[in-house]
Amino acid sequence: MAKAQSGFCLMSQAFSPSLFFTTLCLSASLALPLKNMNYIKAFAPATVANVACGFDIFGFAVDEPGDVVEIYRRDEPGLIITDITGDEGRLPRDPARNAVTVVMLRLLDHLKISDFGGEVILHKNMPLGSGMGSSAASAVAGVFALNELLGQPLTRQQLLPFAVEGERIACGSAHADNVGPALMGGFVVIRSYQPLDVFRIPVPGDLYCTLVNPDIEVNTKDARFILRNEVSLKNAISQMGNVAGLIAGLMQEDYDLISRSMVDVIVEPIRAILIPEFNEVKQAAIAQGALGCSISGAGPSMFTLSKGRETAERVGQAMQQKFAEAEIDSKVYVSAINRDGPRILATA
Amino acid sequence: MAKAQSGFCLMSQAFSPSLFFTTLCLSASLALPLKNMNYIKAFAPATVANVACGFDIFGFAVDEPGDVVEIYRRDEPGLIITDITGDEGRLPRDPARNAVTVVMLRLLDHLKISDFGGEVILHKNMPLGSGMGSSAASAVAGVFALNELLGQPLTRQQLLPFAVEGERIACGSAHADNVGPALMGGFVVIRSYQPLDVFRIPVPGDLYCTLVNPDIEVNTKDARFILRNEVSLKNAISQMGNVAGLIAGLMQEDYDLISRSMVDVIVEPIRAILIPEFNEVKQAAIAQGALGCSISGAGPSMFTLSKGRETAERVGQAMQQKFAEAEIDSKVYVSAINRDGPRILATA
Repeated sequence: MAKAQSGFCLMSQAFSPSLFFTTLCLSASLALPLKNMNYIKAFAPATVANVACGFDIFGFAVDEPGDVVEIYRRDEPGLIITDITGDEGRLPRDPARNAVTVVMLRLLDHLKISDFGGEVILHKNMPLGSGMGSSAASAVAGVFALNELLGQPLTRQQLLPFAVEGERIACGSAHADNVGPALMGGFVVIRSYQPLDVFRIPVPGDLYCTLVNPDIEVNTKDARFILRNEVSLKNAISQMGNVAGLIAGLMQEDYDLISRSMVDVIVEPIRAILIPEFNEVKQAAIAQGALGCSISGAGPSMFTLSKGRETAERVGQAMQQKFAEAEIDSKVYVSAINRDGPRILATA
Repeated sequence: MAKAQSGFCLMSQAFSPSLFFTTLCLSASLALPLKNMNYIKAFAPATVANVACGFDIFGFAVDEPGDVVEIYRRDEPGLIITDITGDEGRLPRDPARNAVTVVMLRLLDHLKISDFGGEVILHKNMPLGSGMGSSAASAVAGVFALNELLGQPLTRQQLLPFAVEGERIACGSAHADNVGPALMGGFVVIRSYQPLDVFRIPVPGDLYCTLVNPDIEVNTKDARFILRNEVSLKNAISQMGNVAGLIAGLMQEDYDLISRSMVDVIVEPIRAILIPEFNEVKQAAIAQGALGCSISGAGPSMFTLSKGRETAERVGQAMQQKFAEAEIDSKVYVSAINRDGPRILATA
């Protein structure tokens, strides 16, 4: 099984001669701001949005992969992007157009800080447009890193609207089901968008996610465009039942209820058309013991939840094999649910 | 405040001279069947279906009011209805047409018992068509009583499809959001109708329900007919967020989350039109500290949830007062959440 490595253990290839930095592994829950910090390197996780029945309202974070942002303070005010790795040159280097730096500029503006200067390096460790919350991971890593560098003027919860704005810039839709879990960790529910009301629920300790990213691309805007604006009351009721079942199943550690509730009658039947071999891959996952399998975010990545890492690994192999039979390459990520959200990798 | 008394503490006015019966207060969780039982009297509770955001999927039982069914064995096979109290003569006395006895006959048929003979007395302690699960309470009391009288051949869960069938006969729609909680007690979720998949979730100990039944009538069939067959995806997402919030709020004893989640953007805006003074009464309830207020089932009864009995009583007074200002009489019931479902009141 091709198990991708997240890049957060690698030191950046870029080097700023004005700084001498040490690598520290710091907890994301670190309460005290670090004084006189001149450099920070932070990680934010990939996320699975929708989670079968919870279109636009559910998302959870995984331990890997994730994106990494480095910020070096510099004397001259303003942000510049000095490097982006892993994006195949596709993301804008202009700080006024790149969602990561736009969100950071909005934060600085909100804090009325006009004299901050920073060099930003972004490491993309997952494909763009993969349905794994790529843009959310970058935006959250950036805004989290900047907030830490500034001495934590805002709480995690207060950073959320900035990260949501990043999604609007990157994807054209201000959804929170990726940035919510990327920022807060765990399994997150967006109860309401106006006003934004987000909360976390506990999940069973033995719950593992398998993410399979086939080498095809679906544009998030297209995936949203093909959805119908109306749904039948019957399907809405069915979906609501599964939403209730998934929340209760996760909170009660009832794996069977989780499994029965991982059903999407509204979005999956439409978006699955965009993913070749969807039904075959899903059936292969279920046959290997996955609790359920659906599209991760807007796709084309698919995800499963399983009880135990061993099952999650076996499920991933079967899914990759099924894609391979149709001559589609894929990457597989097996991971526990990330409970902490972003974390500091290094400071100086 | 006019607080109605449920009738389950009163002995029946009817008397069968062939039987000498004693009144026993027995727990509904009694595991051993009572042998050679010739008489049973059982109570089943009123229920609040939908619970704001959970149309057709949520329901909970209250401690009062509730309906009572008595069954006397008799030698001649078949069921006869010897009396119905509290229905103002509106329910059919023909056992082949009354939902309570039809459900009992289905149970006997399922159990392949052809020689059972019984006299049935039904005590209605809540108005018909009130939105308080009147038909469900009667059907559940009946099928539960018969199952006990027969020595518990089926479990509670196994009785559910029979009670659902009773709803189909009484209301024209086989919904389970009243019979589920009436039979199982507590707060019940119907995750799926096909196959029927019902589970209970725990609720906070200090949660109280205020039910207000105005002296007007809404036909359940009409209340269903005026609903649209399609809902906007936006509203479906909003409702799903509230469904998730209400489940998590109840399970985490987060009263504030419960309150924020008691929002119905799909059904309440349409059905509220059928209830005079709905908005004024709802506002009066919220002003007195109710966590939320919506229509109970198909209406016209309205319900609130409150933290603490004192608040629930005060809320009830304010709601009744608001109806009274529009010259509408109403009955108010303040009750804890019923956790046990039906119970035996007497046997002989």
